[in-house]
Amino acid sequence: MVEGRHWRIPREVEDIIDGIKSMRIRGAGKIARSAAEALKIAALKYRGDLKEFTPYINYVAHKLIRTRPTAVSLPNAVFYVISRIKDLTGEDARETVIKAADEFITLSKKALDRLSEIGAKLIKDGYVIMTHCHSTAVVSVLQKAWNQGKSIRVINTETRPKFQGRITARVLASIGIPVTHIPDSSVRMFINRVDMVIVGADTITSDGHLINKVGTSLIALAAWESGTSFYSATEFIKFSPASFAGGDVIIEERSPLEVVSEDWIKANPKVNVLNPAFDVTPPEYITGFITDLGVIPPKAAVLVIKEMFGLESGYMQLKLIEEEYAIE
Amino acid sequence: MVEGRHWRIPREVEDIIDGIKSMRIRGAGKIARSAAEALKIAALKYRGDLKEFTPYINYVAHKLIRTRPTAVSLPNAVFYVISRIKDLTGEDARETVIKAADEFITLSKKALDRLSEIGAKLIKDGYVIMTHCHSTAVVSVLQKAWNQGKSIRVINTETRPKFQGRITARVLASIGIPVTHIPDSSVRMFINRVDMVIVGADTITSDGHLINKVGTSLIALAAWESGTSFYSATEFIKFSPASFAGGDVIIEERSPLEVVSEDWIKANPKVNVLNPAFDVTPPEYITGFITDLGVIPPKAAVLVIKEMFGLESGYMQLKLIEEEYAIE
Amino acid sequence: MVEGRHWRIPREVEDIIDGIKSMRIRGAGKIARSAAEALKIAALKYRGDLKEFTPYINYVAHKLIRTRPTAVSLPNAVFYVISRIKDLTGEDARETVIKAADEFITLSKKALDRLSEIGAKLIKDGYVIMTHCHSTAVVSVLQKAWNQGKSIRVINTETRPKFQGRITARVLASIGIPVTHIPDSSVRMFINRVDMVIVGADTITSDGHLINKVGTSLIALAAWESGTSFYSATEFIKFSPASFAGGDVIIEERSPLEVVSEDWIKANPKVNVLNPAFDVTPPEYITGFITDLGVIPPKAAVLVIKEMFGLESGYMQLKLIEEEYAIE
Amino acid sequence: MVEGRHWRIPREVEDIIDGIKSMRIRGAGKIARSAAEALKIAALKYRGDLKEFTPYINYVAHKLIRTRPTAVSLPNAVFYVISRIKDLTGEDARETVIKAADEFITLSKKALDRLSEIGAKLIKDGYVIMTHCHSTAVVSVLQKAWNQGKSIRVINTETRPKFQGRITARVLASIGIPVTHIPDSSVRMFINRVDMVIVGADTITSDGHLINKVGTSLIALAAWESGTSFYSATEFIKFSPASFAGGDVIIEERSPLEVVSEDWIKANPKVNVLNPAFDVTPPEYITGFITDLGVIPPKAAVLVIKEMFGLESGYMQLKLIEEEYAIE
Amino acid sequence: MVEGRHWRIPREVEDIIDGIKSMRIRGAGKIARSAAEALKIAALKYRGDLKEFTPYINYVAHKLIRTRPTAVSLPNAVFYVISRIKDLTGEDARETVIKAADEFITLSKKALDRLSEIGAKLIKDGYVIMTHCHSTAVVSVLQKAWNQGKSIRVINTETRPKFQGRITARVLASIGIPVTHIPDSSVRMFINRVDMVIVGADTITSDGHLINKVGTSLIALAAWESGTSFYSATEFIKFSPASFAGGDVIIEERSPLEVVSEDWIKANPKVNVLNPAFDVTPPEYITGFITDLGVIPPKAAVLVIKEMFGLESGYMQLKLIEEEYAIE
Amino acid sequence: MVEGRHWRIPREVEDIIDGIKSMRIRGAGKIARSAAEALKIAALKYRGDLKEFTPYINYVAHKLIRTRPTAVSLPNAVFYVISRIKDLTGEDARETVIKAADEFITLSKKALDRLSEIGAKLIKDGYVIMTHCHSTAVVSVLQKAWNQGKSIRVINTETRPKFQGRITARVLASIGIPVTHIPDSSVRMFINRVDMVIVGADTITSDGHLINKVGTSLIALAAWESGTSFYSATEFIKFSPASFAGGDVIIEERSPLEVVSEDWIKANPKVNVLNPAFDVTPPEYITGFITDLGVIPPKAAVLVIKEMFGLESGYMQLKLIEEEYAIE
Repeated sequence: MVEGRHWRIPREVEDIIDGIKSMRIRGAGKIARSAAEALKIAALKYRGDLKEFTPYINYVAHKLIRTRPTAVSLPNAVFYVISRIKDLTGEDARETVIKAADEFITLSKKALDRLSEIGAKLIKDGYVIMTHCHSTAVVSVLQKAWNQGKSIRVINTETRPKFQGRITARVLASIGIPVTHIPDSSVRMFINRVDMVIVGADTITSDGHLINKVGTSLIALAAWESGTSFYSATEFIKFSPASFAGGDVIIEERSPLEVVSEDWIKANPKVNVLNPAFDVTPPEYITGFITDLGVIPPKAAVLVIKEMFGLESGYMQLKLIEEEYAIE
Repeated sequence: MVEGRHWRIPREVEDIIDGIKSMRIRGAGKIARSAAEALKIAALKYRGDLKEFTPYINYVAHKLIRTRPTAVSLPNAVFYVISRIKDLTGEDARETVIKAADEFITLSKKALDRLSEIGAKLIKDGYVIMTHCHSTAVVSVLQKAWNQGKSIRVINTETRPKFQGRITARVLASIGIPVTHIPDSSVRMFINRVDMVIVGADTITSDGHLINKVGTSLIALAAWESGTSFYSATEFIKFSPASFAGGDVIIEERSPLEVVSEDWIKANPKVNVLNPAFDVTPPEYITGFITDLGVIPPKAAVLVIKEMFGLESGYMQLKLIEEEYAIE
Repeated sequence: MVEGRHWRIPREVEDIIDGIKSMRIRGAGKIARSAAEALKIAALKYRGDLKEFTPYINYVAHKLIRTRPTAVSLPNAVFYVISRIKDLTGEDARETVIKAADEFITLSKKALDRLSEIGAKLIKDGYVIMTHCHSTAVVSVLQKAWNQGKSIRVINTETRPKFQGRITARVLASIGIPVTHIPDSSVRMFINRVDMVIVGADTITSDGHLINKVGTSLIALAAWESGTSFYSATEFIKFSPASFAGGDVIIEERSPLEVVSEDWIKANPKVNVLNPAFDVTPPEYITGFITDLGVIPPKAAVLVIKEMFGLESGYMQLKLIEEEYAIE
Repeated sequence: MVEGRHWRIPREVEDIIDGIKSMRIRGAGKIARSAAEALKIAALKYRGDLKEFTPYINYVAHKLIRTRPTAVSLPNAVFYVISRIKDLTGEDARETVIKAADEFITLSKKALDRLSEIGAKLIKDGYVIMTHCHSTAVVSVLQKAWNQGKSIRVINTETRPKFQGRITARVLASIGIPVTHIPDSSVRMFINRVDMVIVGADTITSDGHLINKVGTSLIALAAWESGTSFYSATEFIKFSPASFAGGDVIIEERSPLEVVSEDWIKANPKVNVLNPAFDVTPPEYITGFITDLGVIPPKAAVLVIKEMFGLESGYMQLKLIEEEYAIE
Repeated sequence: MVEGRHWRIPREVEDIIDGIKSMRIRGAGKIARSAAEALKIAALKYRGDLKEFTPYINYVAHKLIRTRPTAVSLPNAVFYVISRIKDLTGEDARETVIKAADEFITLSKKALDRLSEIGAKLIKDGYVIMTHCHSTAVVSVLQKAWNQGKSIRVINTETRPKFQGRITARVLASIGIPVTHIPDSSVRMFINRVDMVIVGADTITSDGHLINKVGTSLIALAAWESGTSFYSATEFIKFSPASFAGGDVIIEERSPLEVVSEDWIKANPKVNVLNPAFDVTPPEYITGFITDLGVIPPKAAVLVIKEMFGLESGYMQLKLIEEEYAIE
Repeated sequence: MVEGRHWRIPREVEDIIDGIKSMRIRGAGKIARSAAEALKIAALKYRGDLKEFTPYINYVAHKLIRTRPTAVSLPNAVFYVISRIKDLTGEDARETVIKAADEFITLSKKALDRLSEIGAKLIKDGYVIMTHCHSTAVVSVLQKAWNQGKSIRVINTETRPKFQGRITARVLASIGIPVTHIPDSSVRMFINRVDMVIVGADTITSDGHLINKVGTSLIALAAWESGTSFYSATEFIKFSPASFAGGDVIIEERSPLEVVSEDWIKANPKVNVLNPAFDVTPPEYITGFITDLGVIPPKAAVLVIKEMFGLESGYMQLKLIEEEYAIE
């Protein structure tokens, strides 16, 4: 669709592209804001014929997304900006790109603050909250509630095999929040003492599925069984439009050496050790997503995606992923 | 109820009582058979007035159970024998005790064989079976099916914190059965590839709850959610009559040092580490108990208890536990 | 089946029959024990040919049941005794009747004590318990737990239209138990603060349905929804064999004047006011029946009935009800 | 955000503010329409610099909402108007305010008519409909269906403790609709004879929960259990955006004297009588909201809120409530 | 176990064995009664040493069952008789066999009458009843209810591919019962107009699964979804003990020519047409089994089996099936 | 609302109206595109006063819809175009109509291609897919997946009474896809071997119900029970706005002669044979709608309708249906 390569890309934009590629720019939020920044720069520095601005900025957008189309926050930043110039051309388009990029950056910067404020409202004095793995969004929600003087307690899982739950336990205890630390498999025993589960999010699909650290879906299932609220706290840039067009989430498989030692593997060569990084929690088990936009019911995920990135964003992202990976 | 202490207890019986107390006699099966043996010896060696035989043997029974009333197999062995002389006295009672003790011992000895034969029938060629922790009963069912030429595969959990799943993986692989070894928290991701779950049992209550290694109830919940059969393989002596009279199962709490290191505890003194040994799986999630008597639907547990140990056994066992622990 | 009417019925037996008919003998327990007593007297005073004893006692049994076949405890007492002489004749039968009648009376007299002991075991320190209407069995369970030093609290419904819940509130408060008194329709708001529901029982069917004061099934439904245990406390004589043979429970319809005033009815002649006395709670919502025999899972109701009254009792009772009411 | 207080508020607007404060202006619809009217007047009478119109009208809006931020219809009216000038200034903004206020007033006036027309379409000839408490919206739906010649029947609850159900019974009977009047606790007994439940609404949250007269959620649960449709009939101004930002619904607690007499309380000083006014019905149990906009699936409540009041309305309303009550 | 073949089998017994083998004796009831008759004859005509009677009669039993071990009623008849001499020898055993065989024959002969009487009790005036395929037991229940003057209506499926439902429609219409005849796939559309489903039974497993004409489980599922009662009417001889020992039900696969024509198969050689005869309905969807013994809750199936055929019957039957088919 | 009939309708538009009326123009897609074309022509050929363009084009729209208001795709095409000129008049309105009509035609033409591409993404290599009846959309999704080299297999129902499943079996087999052909009533037996169900759609309501060939809802129920994904593949023009305003779907009743022969009906005059063409599948059982716009969660159907046809479309369509049929 966007073919011409005769357009000059400003050096700052090239720098950002390199930064994302080389992983110098990291973290869902930072990547997303850099991409919006790049579009803004490209718009500001555009010196060509204004009639050609729209194809030009689409070309830059395309180039940006191709850097890492599977990182959900990157295409989201680009689609946020680009979807706003749908019917515009010339100077109107250019101004809209600049304004939308600024808007996106502001939204993203305030995201953690805003979502922790919203999340803390859901927490009542005396609540016992269960969490899993380690999530900055969750910790900031809990800290906010604690700072508001609510006397909360936390039950957290160790999160095998990498024990990220130990980080969460340490951080929360250092804030002063009472923490009970438990093995993953004992989750169902403790769920009846819990008022609320809050976990983070890797990605959220258009039909409200949550992709998060393996074990999340078991906790969600146990919470559902016991009638306990289950929330995922996350910035809105984790909502993925790709699934809207039939795209599938691929779960990363990690090294067996995180599960057993090299010696054990040698001693038991016929045992196949598997170590998936994430699992998928269905929307039925999720009370809501605590985001910077508000508390989103899972079934309304598609609404957020449409509002923020446009209905076409899923289809386009999938196309770009396929090009990248030459997937049929 | 049974008060007289002027009766002479044969030395062999005293030996068995000591053996159970000192843990020289160990394992649910061995303890149970020793208790039955003790009753048989007491009956054989009884030289007193035959009219007093029934109170005498009840006295011995009482003494035996008090040795360790919380070990479910011990009172079960005793009630199996004693419930059969309910309305009998004299020589009739004596002969019945001897016969019932022999019966019980034979039943118990053949239990593993019989249940593995019954369990193997439930397994079809090509089945993928999930198991948790390490259970001799489960391994013998799987081995039986494998020896029958069924091409089965096993997915087994590592079973934090003690990693008993590694033993299971090693043993099954050494038999030749293909094993996939996974972290506990990834159970729900694999459950859809599984045809059947089989776990062991610590205790089974009169209303069909299964007490087993922590994590069992989460697997059962995930199996139920996905429509996968969930079995527990166990000898009938694990069925506990106590809950029939309102008795409660107390879950052993184990050392936090199985979960985190001593250093970690010192570094994080405000984190409370909990490590429950077992959990409780409700009957709704259990397809059946694979026992030496047959495949018992959970709701029929009370029937097994009544048939094998008599309706009064629960009440009596509870009384004895309370005396022992002076529980109100 | 039992036709001869030339047998002489002892006067004491006639007295009991009159007492039940005239409602001089009242209350499920008292009626049942009187009926057993009547059979015992008939057996003791029998002077006829011993070969005819079995038909004779069946004749007396028949006569007793016909007095009030719909009062579940009355035929149950009779069947308890009669089912024990199934294959017996002559002196054996006579002795068995006397012994069984005594057994029944003893069981029934100890019933409340025994069930409150068993029920109290299910209650843990700190429990919040919800109850509905007014039930002696429930009050005695709660009192037992309270006397054991357990710090319980009770939430009880007012139980429109007759406000029997006010009696329960008053009685429990006088014992010292803290009581929260609520309107019937607010049950679902309080159920999440509750650890356990205990209600009484009017009748229990062979497949585990509970007939009890209207509103019971709504509370059971709300308890089920929230994962709260739901028990019914009752003597075993409330288990009805009739439903085993297809018999149906008929729900008493009470006066509209319990719901609205006479004036209101006159002012609103077109409004049809209905006031059913009981409703039916399905076994899926019932954790167990707390009885003098133990904690019975609802699905095992049929087992209790078979053990206590014999498999034929349902069929026979239904026949007698039909004769009485000339129902097709 | 809106600070300046040097703006002159027209007297008519001040009058409306006073009217709402003093409860002279009452009823969700009337309050909402008055607030829209106030904004219109403020816009019409504005004589200041047009560049300052947007901050001015926001100031008036703010002032209006602060009058009673917890009355859901008031802020909704204001947000309806204000959200439409999001990016506008000057004369454009002024005209938009006037037009939007008129639109809102028209919508609100036609609401009852429109929703009763839509609701009546859902009712088929011969339907038996259950209702609870007294709701003008429900009565108008039923009357509409009846006037269309549909032969409906109504089962209605007495609605303890205030017996508002008696009003409903009287009103419906006077229209000619056959009414069966029942105690609240018998709801589950009648639900199987019912084709449809329709109740009113106090408030509807962004994730589709219904706040309504206590007892509503029990009826909804029973309807769900029996597969009966459950609708709530309500104007769209009852949809509350506040929960979208994590806001919580606070249930009014009413006097115990509505439940028991003063004498009873004195006689039973240790009994704590509670009397909550409303309860919360989860979206899973609600077939749809019958509104003037159409039949809204509960999960689409957030869509209505976004369309009508803007995504920011929840956050802003919550802020204003917090200011008002100085809630953290 | 039973090896000696030097015993003489009376000619009448040989005749019965031949009759069953050659399918001259057909129908579950007739086969069962013939087998009981054979055991009675063998006992009556026994002229050997009475000490050897028990092994002898076991030998005959064994021979009978081997005739057709997969026909559930045949081994059931044999186990009914044989389980009653468990601990008996000599004349006692012989008399017991004769008495038990007579009992069984009487029970079986009265079965249809008895179950239709019990089933009819469950049907109320005005009921709409759905049925599937053609079952004599169901027809006799419906006819009984009709003859009692109950105004029932029946909805029946055509039951592809053999259209046995047309027979049912014709038979019921000839009795006078109003019948609505529908395609199998429209079952869910009609289930809400239905008060009760009654189907027949091929076999019932020990844990309460129903094996019946394909399509039964879909109807049961739809009935369960809509809260409609679902019964299976059947003689108690259809309860199979084999599954108690882990035995599996094998579903007969019938000819594709019942589904499509030979021409069609030739024209579409790559289409694989499958035609299973039966399917399996899980106990959760079954309200009860209407049998000659009473209305059996599915979870009590194991109780019936134990009472009627003994706990060992399943294990023995399975052994005999395996011998027959040399199944591992 | 639109009354004037003095406007001249271009002959080409009259032709299209005639074509739709006389069924010369057939098929949901073709009818819809013709209607859009008609609006475009009417706009292009309009020679009247531009101030009157909006009422004029509404008049044409009205005329078009009245041709067949129950054919969901026809009013949808019209509302798609008309809802876009809501606030426009004059030349703006005219241009918008032309542009929107073109847009609609393009969308509709690409629909099958686009949805088969999206649907094929959901299918993984090795999948077993069940389908029902014959749907062009489903066949094209399957063909697309097959052409992508995915080794899929299909299980398809015969779809009584018209056996459209035979067409599907033949078509798929001719493509090369392995097909297993089964009777409708055996669906539940095969569902556990299936990875995914895909069916077509007749109509989709605003709250996500699927109207499709009778039997669809039974398959959906069985899929839901077994945790199998259930999709409906359909162009977006099948989404019906009418239900949003309380409109009801009327299920076509077809001739009994499709079910039984004329002879059979004559021989069994008292049997009432019913043959409904469609049934209704509730949104709870539907994973998603595979449409040309993306994979729509059922609960987001209302969003599609609002985006595509406007919120008022349902109300207007219903009004027109009522006028047509003079329904109250």
